[in-house]
Amino acid sequence: MAMEGYKGFLVLLVSALLVGFLSVIFTLVWVLHYRGGLGWDGTDLEFNWHPVLMVTGFVFIQGIAIIVYRLPWTWKCSKLLMKSIHAGLNTVAAILATISLVAVFENRNYRNITHLYSLHGWVGLTVVIFYVLQLLLGFLVFLLPWAPLSFRSFLMPIHVYSGLLLFGTAIVTILMGVTEKLFFVLTNPAYSTFPPEGVFVNTLGFIILVFGGLIFWIVTRPQWKRPKEPTSTLLQPNGATTEGVEGSVATSYGHNMDKSDSELNNEVAARKRNLALDEAVQRSTM
Amino acid sequence: MAMEGYKGFLVLLVSALLVGFLSVIFTLVWVLHYRGGLGWDGTDLEFNWHPVLMVTGFVFIQGIAIIVYRLPWTWKCSKLLMKSIHAGLNTVAAILATISLVAVFENRNYRNITHLYSLHGWVGLTVVIFYVLQLLLGFLVFLLPWAPLSFRSFLMPIHVYSGLLLFGTAIVTILMGVTEKLFFVLTNPAYSTFPPEGVFVNTLGFIILVFGGLIFWIVTRPQWKRPKEPTSTLLQPNGATTEGVEGSVATSYGHNMDKSDSELNNEVAARKRNLALDEAVQRSTM
Repeated sequence: MAMEGYKGFLVLLVSALLVGFLSVIFTLVWVLHYRGGLGWDGTDLEFNWHPVLMVTGFVFIQGIAIIVYRLPWTWKCSKLLMKSIHAGLNTVAAILATISLVAVFENRNYRNITHLYSLHGWVGLTVVIFYVLQLLLGFLVFLLPWAPLSFRSFLMPIHVYSGLLLFGTAIVTILMGVTEKLFFVLTNPAYSTFPPEGVFVNTLGFIILVFGGLIFWIVTRPQWKRPKEPTSTLLQPNGATTEGVEGSVATSYGHNMDKSDSELNNEVAARKRNLALDEAVQRSTM
Repeated sequence: MAMEGYKGFLVLLVSALLVGFLSVIFTLVWVLHYRGGLGWDGTDLEFNWHPVLMVTGFVFIQGIAIIVYRLPWTWKCSKLLMKSIHAGLNTVAAILATISLVAVFENRNYRNITHLYSLHGWVGLTVVIFYVLQLLLGFLVFLLPWAPLSFRSFLMPIHVYSGLLLFGTAIVTILMGVTEKLFFVLTNPAYSTFPPEGVFVNTLGFIILVFGGLIFWIVTRPQWKRPKEPTSTLLQPNGATTEGVEGSVATSYGHNMDKSDSELNNEVAARKRNLALDEAVQRSTM
């Protein structure tokens, strides 16, 4: 399937996968090598699941879920399948985040520490709650067949915006959590003396930021959007009233009609119908 | 000047201004009421300029600089004027950020604390350096008249992306800094006992996030983009080769031709010439 800047896309996708993978590896090395390992006994070994599951679910998997529509080799797959994969990945991320929260709460109960007093806790809980709401709303509106097209069109730009905002805020929260943890545990030798753990986890923080940056770049390139129709048929009106626009525009293009032109024509017709709609909606909900 | 969803835009703009203003006020209350006030004597009173100048410059002013092209009452102003305002606001933000860094460095020298060991320090310094580079590059390419259009078109999507990434990362850095500071200073009573300062500054953190969310919403609505040409002339081809496309498309629209249609036609021609270009470029550089 043709895609503009396919090579560039592949380079960025592979980079994102590598950097995302690296962030998970770094988190595992952090807890296994520096923080005593993993366990489920209430102690800090149980707490250690918190960063591992958050980086795996709320950074890596959520990031992949965001760009899954942009993989050009999936453009021949049905929209329903891709929506299911998008929803499935986000569900996995939500489950990992929930287990991750259980680990913190059990550890804090065990150690008799107050819950949710820090900014990390406040923002983090808010992000997880809104993430689950976003998942439920997305499932009800976009995956189940009952929501009317007009409501899907209305909700889609909000869904896209909220999703990216939640992803960004998840990264904010994780870096606040990393900051908290390092100041707590790095006392002897102190964080300020550049101990290996401090340098290593600072690097992890950077890797997470780079992953976020790559996902944001990939998802905001207009030329890498999934085309509106998986198998573009020339001159086929894309539903609803067409007012004969596609036909005449297509004719006026005449000799140099190709897939790109066809796409443009559909777009003109679609945007003519409702200029207010975000372009993302046009391709994502219909 | 007509704009789609003008009322919605105004509501969001006023909200962003209020929330941004509130974040500055909260920061001032934090340092003046809870942290002993401001000074320039090397002590923590000098450090206190750090959050004040960062929230003022790197959150509030940078946020306004990002959305300044979207104010519809400026659409009659020349692009050069708006670029100068955009660059000017970002310059003010960069100057405030620099003074803010001087305050930290002098305070750390005075107290004999190591520089730049925390993730906050690493990310923060990186953001300020890239922010200044972005400012210089933007000035050279977009404000000075010498860069060729093709290079401006190439750079514009990168400039927009980098700007938003820097703004987001500035917020990440500030919330890490807030986390650090609260854990340092809130020892008696401890942060974990919900002292007024902790609750107050957690709230400040939320306010900053909401401000970021509002700016991101405003800047990503396609219908609120500054139109490509300040005074749109019907059927006027927008430069370069037109292949008779605008004419025939316009004719096919016929009776319901209006400003929006005219804009669409221009867009079709423009995108036909180079589909790879980000739409943002189309409106921002030519």
